[in-house]
Amino acid sequence: MTSSAIDLNADAGESFGSWRMGRDEELFPLVSSVNIACGFHAGDPATMVRAVRLARSSGTAIGAHPGYPDRVGFGRRELGIDAEQAHADTLYQIGAIDAIVRAQGRALQHVKPHGALYLQMLRDEGLARAVAAAVRAFDRQLPLLVLGGSQMQRAAEAEGVRTIREAFPDRGYLANGLLAPRSMSGSLIRDPARAAARAVAMTRGEPVATVDGRELVLEPQTLCIHGDTPESVEIARAVRLALESAGVAVRAF
Amino acid sequence: MTSSAIDLNADAGESFGSWRMGRDEELFPLVSSVNIACGFHAGDPATMVRAVRLARSSGTAIGAHPGYPDRVGFGRRELGIDAEQAHADTLYQIGAIDAIVRAQGRALQHVKPHGALYLQMLRDEGLARAVAAAVRAFDRQLPLLVLGGSQMQRAAEAEGVRTIREAFPDRGYLANGLLAPRSMSGSLIRDPARAAARAVAMTRGEPVATVDGRELVLEPQTLCIHGDTPESVEIARAVRLALESAGVAVRAF
Amino acid sequence: MTSSAIDLNADAGESFGSWRMGRDEELFPLVSSVNIACGFHAGDPATMVRAVRLARSSGTAIGAHPGYPDRVGFGRRELGIDAEQAHADTLYQIGAIDAIVRAQGRALQHVKPHGALYLQMLRDEGLARAVAAAVRAFDRQLPLLVLGGSQMQRAAEAEGVRTIREAFPDRGYLANGLLAPRSMSGSLIRDPARAAARAVAMTRGEPVATVDGRELVLEPQTLCIHGDTPESVEIARAVRLALESAGVAVRAF
Amino acid sequence: MTSSAIDLNADAGESFGSWRMGRDEELFPLVSSVNIACGFHAGDPATMVRAVRLARSSGTAIGAHPGYPDRVGFGRRELGIDAEQAHADTLYQIGAIDAIVRAQGRALQHVKPHGALYLQMLRDEGLARAVAAAVRAFDRQLPLLVLGGSQMQRAAEAEGVRTIREAFPDRGYLANGLLAPRSMSGSLIRDPARAAARAVAMTRGEPVATVDGRELVLEPQTLCIHGDTPESVEIARAVRLALESAGVAVRAF
Repeated sequence: MTSSAIDLNADAGESFGSWRMGRDEELFPLVSSVNIACGFHAGDPATMVRAVRLARSSGTAIGAHPGYPDRVGFGRRELGIDAEQAHADTLYQIGAIDAIVRAQGRALQHVKPHGALYLQMLRDEGLARAVAAAVRAFDRQLPLLVLGGSQMQRAAEAEGVRTIREAFPDRGYLANGLLAPRSMSGSLIRDPARAAARAVAMTRGEPVATVDGRELVLEPQTLCIHGDTPESVEIARAVRLALESAGVAVRAF
Repeated sequence: MTSSAIDLNADAGESFGSWRMGRDEELFPLVSSVNIACGFHAGDPATMVRAVRLARSSGTAIGAHPGYPDRVGFGRRELGIDAEQAHADTLYQIGAIDAIVRAQGRALQHVKPHGALYLQMLRDEGLARAVAAAVRAFDRQLPLLVLGGSQMQRAAEAEGVRTIREAFPDRGYLANGLLAPRSMSGSLIRDPARAAARAVAMTRGEPVATVDGRELVLEPQTLCIHGDTPESVEIARAVRLALESAGVAVRAF
Repeated sequence: MTSSAIDLNADAGESFGSWRMGRDEELFPLVSSVNIACGFHAGDPATMVRAVRLARSSGTAIGAHPGYPDRVGFGRRELGIDAEQAHADTLYQIGAIDAIVRAQGRALQHVKPHGALYLQMLRDEGLARAVAAAVRAFDRQLPLLVLGGSQMQRAAEAEGVRTIREAFPDRGYLANGLLAPRSMSGSLIRDPARAAARAVAMTRGEPVATVDGRELVLEPQTLCIHGDTPESVEIARAVRLALESAGVAVRAF
Repeated sequence: MTSSAIDLNADAGESFGSWRMGRDEELFPLVSSVNIACGFHAGDPATMVRAVRLARSSGTAIGAHPGYPDRVGFGRRELGIDAEQAHADTLYQIGAIDAIVRAQGRALQHVKPHGALYLQMLRDEGLARAVAAAVRAFDRQLPLLVLGGSQMQRAAEAEGVRTIREAFPDRGYLANGLLAPRSMSGSLIRDPARAAARAVAMTRGEPVATVDGRELVLEPQTLCIHGDTPESVEIARAVRLALESAGVAVRAF
């Protein structure tokens, strides 16, 4: 499968109070969508207002980026949350960012879970359905970003939620389509040129090598660029340039 | 001035995680509106979902009850927040509760600030305008509860926000229309019969005695019943009965 | 094995800000030791000061009760914390409660981890060693309460920490010595008389029935009485009376 | 008055979870004492462990830096805390950092309140006494850093607490000895050479110009270098060099 256009998404608005994180000003013009933290794992209301303003001025589409209520762990620590809590936490965070987005005359484009919440949704069907149901309860048309081909995608679709398939050009994959654990060699791709080549291949539906020596064909509708690594802006720039050079337009879905 | 109907409002949803507060199950059927805490000074997403469910099943109208981000102080400690933060915090909290309310098929009726935020709005015009502007930014039709006749009311109206004038039958007043500080004798009225008599007088536009020996005529559109004191349910019951006996219907605005 | 004296411990100081939890005033005189929450899963500094004051006035020995930094989940949700964080969090919480205890002229008697932290220590040796090492780093003589016979006990002893073996008269056991999951029938014993009989048997070294149909001999040095259930005070009273009637003194270790 | 030695102190350990703040690695070797945040306005247990380790390796003396429980406001927003809460919060934070310091074989040198807590202590005697009493309750020998000549100093001494007089070479003063509000012109001195010259003059007991056109003689025992501004490391370097060139040794008290 080939595609003449694809979305690039990046996490954003991850500062908190007086603490800065990420290079939002440089990153926003390079991507087509941003996932803005909603105050649980990062962000606070005033930070969210500023991130939405920046997205608006750079013409970037805005998504909600709900996470676990764990600031000190940045939402990256697994949490034994039950489905009722996960549903309520998701609804709360989407509502909060949506109010800020609408107050600036924009509309929320999508929802993308953060960190450990995303990873636990890949293997916990009840959790994935609870989060998806919260998205649907908020707005039946609002899409959820999911790892393409995963159980998370199937759970969301079973809840009647529109999904957008995501792939990670700067992360290594296993042959089963899951992301390689960060402890494995090859799980993080820090070379902008290599990430860019993978982005083009993924988008074109060409096979990419997995860390366990196989090949995998992904059919992403959006590519994720991480925003909190030193190389992130360089990777985003390289990916965007490579896509455009290959005739693939970068635009929100 | 007389009125054949008035709203009774009470704070609700003030539990937090495993901690319980208030007697929501008993109080909701007695009032016509509840102000549900939004997770900053009290409440958490799952608690909010339960409070909205209870309001729905008892036919009570639902308001947002935003407060300061100070759980240990229950939003009752003054905070040197700036206008930008207060605006963003208010918008965030309204959006969060609104999502939970709409997911259950209801609509938000009003916004009422909590505790120290409400009290600081009585004397800090910039703060009052920032909060009012957040209400308007969320929804131009959404009314803000204000202390009737106060600078808070004027600030909200200057921002173009619809106001609902509130009075407190269980609190003593000063001749200038402000609430008597809790440290003053007579500032808290714990006798249900006396609170009920004041509620009827206030609603009818009859003068009520102030703690500094004067009289005051209020023209409330809603009466606040506190929900966190041991006597609150008894006061709510007495007020409601007295109003109905006096021919005043209790209903949401 | 028989014992002519045993400690009874209960969790305490679990209020938070304006929220009340537990019946500390009734419970403290019935037990010989209390585990005071340290502000992470419950408690706050002013609540801790009050709990220590109550323990002092009732002559109850005081332990630290560190937990996960998760107030909304009351420290009962599993958390993917790493050993370095668990070590630091434990040291921090012990230091905080110790300062409050010493300021009132008392000394800390022991440390008992709370909720999910305790349960994860039963099966995660690295976590158990990290917490134990924090206890030792704080004070080489300070004992750690452990589930008697568990891997948690072995990990603590491997770290050179003095352990106190704990048993739970109001909880069902599995034949392997672990607590039965709360989802299993018989995992919670709410009948004070039955809990009391088990407390005496456990203390005397007599076999007690497990929920999976076997028998188990425990050799506890302390018995835990839960403090947050409606029946807790009644269970504590029944256990204490039964022990004293059987000639077993209830006293701190 | 002249002095042949003075302490230089700087705030440190102000990162939080994944968020970085300050340039601790560069700053620690330039000062003789650091004030480490205790987890309320900044810092978390693992961050505190790392800051103490850095202080130990650079031979810097360590103080506690307690602040308000307001992370999003970085402890810089005024808070209507009562004396009982301020006392308990201070004791808690000192105990927490002390445990971490002692676990690394060091001892706590001093306590310095942070941000809005420090500023409110300058004018609220009850608050100043509550905080000072907490320091004394923790350790009768532990000194409290105070603004030299202020009511805060008198309140601390009235509580029997040893005080260390502090001055701010990079802040403008009023003729009454208080710091000029940040909104006043001249309140922040960002030129390293000018801050260095003022540091030498202050230390020698020579008069320094105030922003309201007068002169002031301070007799500091420690000089504060702010750690969170871009220029902080440059100012620290210039101040230290100027002091040493003037024959003043920089060392902890």
